[in-house]
Amino acid sequence: MSQFDNVSVLKQGNVYFDGKCVSHTVVFADGSKKTVGVILPSKLNFNTGAPEIMEVIAGVCNVTLSGETSTKTYSAGQSFDVPGNSSFDIETTETLHYVCHFA
Amino acid sequence: MSQFDNVSVLKQGNVYFDGKCVSHTVVFADGSKKTVGVILPSKLNFNTGAPEIMEVIAGVCNVTLSGETSTKTYSAGQSFDVPGNSSFDIETTETLHYVCHFA
Repeated sequence: MSQFDNVSVLKQGNVYFDGKCVSHTVVFADGSKKTVGVILPSKLNFNTGAPEIMEVIAGVCNVTLSGETSTKTYSAGQSFDVPGNSSFDIETTETLHYVCHFA
Repeated sequence: MSQFDNVSVLKQGNVYFDGKCVSHTVVFADGSKKTVGVILPSKLNFNTGAPEIMEVIAGVCNVTLSGETSTKTYSAGQSFDVPGNSSFDIETTETLHYVCHFA
C-alpha cells in the first residue's frame, strides 16, 4: 500500500537537523499519528519519546540502536523497532523515505 | 484550518533541488491533489506544468514570477498564483512551509 487513506494531514511539516529530516504528520480516525518523512544523506542521532517503528519506503539506511554495537541495514519494505526513551544512529547515503509508526 | 481531513497521503515524498524542497502528495476524495511541503533556506527556480497556487503556511519568501521584474514578499496566510508552463524564483531565508494547490 503506497498511501494512507481516510486520514488527516497537518499542513505544517516537522523539520529536524537543519532540514536533513523533514516529515509531515498524519492523523488517523482513531486519533493515532504517524509521520511520513524524508532523510537526506547524512549521519544523524534521533531520540525517541514513545516507542517507534521505522518503516523504510524507499532508500537504504544503516542503523545502530542505543546500547548496541551492531549496525544493521534496512531497505524498502523493511522496518526496525526503537524502544521508547532511547535513541538510534541512522546513516543514509541516498535519500531515505520512511513512515514512522508510534507504538 | 491547520490540516486537511478525509484525504489520502502518499508515503513516498517528493524531493527537489538536492532536498532543498521536500513535499508529500495529498489526494482528495474528488481525485484532486495538493502537496504539503517545506523549502529550506535557498534561492530556487521552480517550473510549473499546471497552474499553481502557492499558499504560505509558515515562514516568509520572496517571489519573482517569470517575466516580471518586481519581487513580492509572502508570509503565513498569504498565497500567490503561478501560471501554467511558467516558472518562478523563490528565495527563502528561513524554513518555508507551504501548500501547493493545483488549479
